[in-house]
Amino acid sequence: MIRIAVCAPSTPIAEEDARRVLTLAAAEFPEIELSVHPQCFAIDGHFAGNDEQRLDALVECANDPSFDAVWFARGGYGACRIAEDALRRFGPAAESKAWLGYSDAGYLLGALYRERIGRPVHAPMLGCIRRDGGADAVRRVLRFVSGEDTGLDSALDQRPAVAFNLTTLAMLCGTRLMPGLASHVVMVEEVSEHLYALDRLFFHATAHLGGIAGLRLGRVSDIPENDRPFGAGAEEIARYWCKRHAIPFLGPADIGHDAANKIVPFGVAERAQGQ
Amino acid sequence: MIRIAVCAPSTPIAEEDARRVLTLAAAEFPEIELSVHPQCFAIDGHFAGNDEQRLDALVECANDPSFDAVWFARGGYGACRIAEDALRRFGPAAESKAWLGYSDAGYLLGALYRERIGRPVHAPMLGCIRRDGGADAVRRVLRFVSGEDTGLDSALDQRPAVAFNLTTLAMLCGTRLMPGLASHVVMVEEVSEHLYALDRLFFHATAHLGGIAGLRLGRVSDIPENDRPFGAGAEEIARYWCKRHAIPFLGPADIGHDAANKIVPFGVAERAQGQ
Repeated sequence: MIRIAVCAPSTPIAEEDARRVLTLAAAEFPEIELSVHPQCFAIDGHFAGNDEQRLDALVECANDPSFDAVWFARGGYGACRIAEDALRRFGPAAESKAWLGYSDAGYLLGALYRERIGRPVHAPMLGCIRRDGGADAVRRVLRFVSGEDTGLDSALDQRPAVAFNLTTLAMLCGTRLMPGLASHVVMVEEVSEHLYALDRLFFHATAHLGGIAGLRLGRVSDIPENDRPFGAGAEEIARYWCKRHAIPFLGPADIGHDAANKIVPFGVAERAQGQ
Repeated sequence: MIRIAVCAPSTPIAEEDARRVLTLAAAEFPEIELSVHPQCFAIDGHFAGNDEQRLDALVECANDPSFDAVWFARGGYGACRIAEDALRRFGPAAESKAWLGYSDAGYLLGALYRERIGRPVHAPMLGCIRRDGGADAVRRVLRFVSGEDTGLDSALDQRPAVAFNLTTLAMLCGTRLMPGLASHVVMVEEVSEHLYALDRLFFHATAHLGGIAGLRLGRVSDIPENDRPFGAGAEEIARYWCKRHAIPFLGPADIGHDAANKIVPFGVAERAQGQ
């Protein structure tokens, strides 16, 4: 039996979404036991409970040796407020776990990777069940945890990789949560940002990414219309800033805020062997 | 005669706005001669001309010894793309000038302050003429350049200060444009950001502001409505992050994206003596 704990370091999920995923998992993945922490449904303003509640639930999941993985329920915003305190309270049981999520969960994945705690993995979240095709996104994660490697981003090679939402990565830069990324392939995706804001985020992030192996651009989706055209597309923007900082632009990544979002284990992916 | 060059490192202004400010200056400030560079009206996608045009106009204004000040026409976005190249091309004539602007112009003010080139000044811009009460914002700047100190932020004291748009400051952190701010009073303002994004920007910026004398919060305006309340207001957010990083929270600053936006000379303001 593979046991997965679900907690929500950022924003809450609906009980209905949890039920759908539990039903899917019970029907199709009998070897997996999902344990959704009640904190996932707590509401405190923007967050899934206040900082202390989210922190306590995360630490509880991390330090329970019976869990093989911690799956973050949903992004939004909030993980950066508790990440540093959480890691301080993680015990040895945290080190054997896979940690799965993306978007706002990137603050935790980055900090875990920095401290070499377990296996951080960019992956769809439970809340993705709401997306068109969301059931397949959930299946991709459960298959990965079961040891299959079919859901990995096909661009992964023998070089260590990480994947981040660009805003999350930009905000991580220079903080105590930021992992060293020298010689890494860095994949980024973005959602709901104007192209001028994308350009600004690349200005900032690329200034911090000297020494990486290269950058791959995932999907940049739901770009709001501005009062005038920016004058360049997302890939052109990425290439411009890569060039300014002598960062190799390596092409697309198959990640983004959508159900097709592929899996990127931080570090070197162990193919054939799965997670 | 005090000669002020106006150029647009970010986005363009309308000719009508320039005419209004030229008329006001001619009528009320006969000792000032405003020279609006034609590049201010250039349009290239989002920007007031492409990077090369904006860079050339800025360098031309900087290196013309007949100008006492360079006034940035308008914010928006774009100054970070040319700031580094511009400063490399600035000659000795740049060092005797005042540099006036805010918002996106903060990338240049920050870089100029870092390199101790002239006197960077947080101040309304020519394009502010469009705001309600914009004529008074323009008069505030022209009076300041004339040597009056009536438009200074009343919170300024004997400690060195800087003022930034929070997004601009967050994006500056860790880049080659970022000035050292140890022992400075740092004033920030924000516009058109969700409260969760404000919280995120404070997470990032305060992680880079260790050693400052303290933080003052200007106006946080035009906050978009989110699908749910954040649960804390702007000041509470600022206090939270200041506390986490042991940064003294010093209270409000009289700056913001509005016509009441006061003047903050970078460094120690020379009162009584004006600029």
